[in-house]
Amino acid sequence: MRVALGLEYEGGAFCGWQTQSNGASIQDAVERAVSVIADAPVRVHCAGRTDTGVHAAVQVVHFDVDVSRPLTAWVRGVNAHLPDSISVRWSREVDTRFHARFSALARHYRYLLLSRDIRPAIGCGRWGWTHWDLDLAAMQEAAARLVGQHDFTSFRAAECQAASPVRTLTRAAVLETGPLIAFEFSANAFLHHMVRNMVGALVQIGRGARPPSWIDELLAAKNRSLAAPTFSPDGLYLAGVDYPPEFGLPNQGRVRNETFGGGFL
Amino acid sequence: MRVALGLEYEGGAFCGWQTQSNGASIQDAVERAVSVIADAPVRVHCAGRTDTGVHAAVQVVHFDVDVSRPLTAWVRGVNAHLPDSISVRWSREVDTRFHARFSALARHYRYLLLSRDIRPAIGCGRWGWTHWDLDLAAMQEAAARLVGQHDFTSFRAAECQAASPVRTLTRAAVLETGPLIAFEFSANAFLHHMVRNMVGALVQIGRGARPPSWIDELLAAKNRSLAAPTFSPDGLYLAGVDYPPEFGLPNQGRVRNETFGGGFL
Repeated sequence: MRVALGLEYEGGAFCGWQTQSNGASIQDAVERAVSVIADAPVRVHCAGRTDTGVHAAVQVVHFDVDVSRPLTAWVRGVNAHLPDSISVRWSREVDTRFHARFSALARHYRYLLLSRDIRPAIGCGRWGWTHWDLDLAAMQEAAARLVGQHDFTSFRAAECQAASPVRTLTRAAVLETGPLIAFEFSANAFLHHMVRNMVGALVQIGRGARPPSWIDELLAAKNRSLAAPTFSPDGLYLAGVDYPPEFGLPNQGRVRNETFGGGFL
Repeated sequence: MRVALGLEYEGGAFCGWQTQSNGASIQDAVERAVSVIADAPVRVHCAGRTDTGVHAAVQVVHFDVDVSRPLTAWVRGVNAHLPDSISVRWSREVDTRFHARFSALARHYRYLLLSRDIRPAIGCGRWGWTHWDLDLAAMQEAAARLVGQHDFTSFRAAECQAASPVRTLTRAAVLETGPLIAFEFSANAFLHHMVRNMVGALVQIGRGARPPSWIDELLAAKNRSLAAPTFSPDGLYLAGVDYPPEFGLPNQGRVRNETFGGGFL
């Protein structure tokens, strides 16, 4: 049988999602815990591989097992074997046509940023920080220019392995949430470092170093070296993954505020 | 000269405020950083010694130094030598009659609690967690019974070294803040574990195991063994300290929401 899990994690203590020989990845921790409950080695596939230090309010994974367990065992049982900074929120038995990565229709990311003179201790590692004052309206105007189908070469890491640099961004919003600024992005899929590179450019625009139209120049130039440095991973959260409704996964269409970290960020 | 600092910290990585022979306390980290800037060993005194795992949105400390430094050196300079989970928010030169602990008129604590079926990964170590559904109105009625001058022996740790168990609680509020429940307490001073023991009792009342009038029984009994277990340190924050206005410290009277962790919790 194939099982899907909804995960929540803080990535600060891990070297990213993907399995590492030292076993210090989130995938390693999840596979160890699931394997205990399955009583057999289990390989887990995720919707979006997060980098070192990146968090997930909603990460979706699937795996195949020969054993039958009550669905609660895949939640409470697995949680008993996970570190505090990873938890399973829900489990579902799914059709074997379901694949956490390839069935996903859209991914949602959120970047939380604190603009303050002094670096934050409360929140360290869980939101980005800049000492610059940021012009929200300028960043909103700039973000709107990112929406649509574009060649995102200027926002793509050199080591990105995607076949094409073309992606369709369906949402790019900049909003205030308490004293934090939230950058929200939705797309069918993202290139490597694409969100952190977009945030880096928007911050340069927000502090007045570039006008909002700089986004159009960067998209047209298709040249990573012209854009801003990759922003810190600290404030980046995978905030939701959309699948076709026939797979019956929970919380679909309720990503962002309601499911994001339980809604408290 | 005597200098006062406002600190913010996450206590999860430290064995509490007070200096330890292994140097793993918050006091040790702050004294190391201040001593670098002072170019001499410095002993630091705080407003309230927080336990292992307890955080501070506002902790006030003072120290004496023979050297003169610009006030910004005590902020940016010290911050450069502190770990990410501690930061100095402000510095002031103060009269030598000022003492961070003995001059304090009142302390404010906040306890953040998540009531949810599954333990939180986002927020782990930074808010308490219970799987029980909690009756907010019952906890509010119970909290009101704690306000006033009482013998708090039933809420006092066995190892508490205070000369008297009598304290005057000027505020005890229970409110919702997003999906979290915040317990807010203000008093001239607190006994050891007093906030965590009050939260433990209020949670028992919130889940319906005891009526709000149980608080009156516990206060009258003056017997720690009759009350609830000490609640987890995870969600506890020193949220503010009040001093006489003549000392000219910043953010006085603006504790809680505005200064609490920059306002984002």
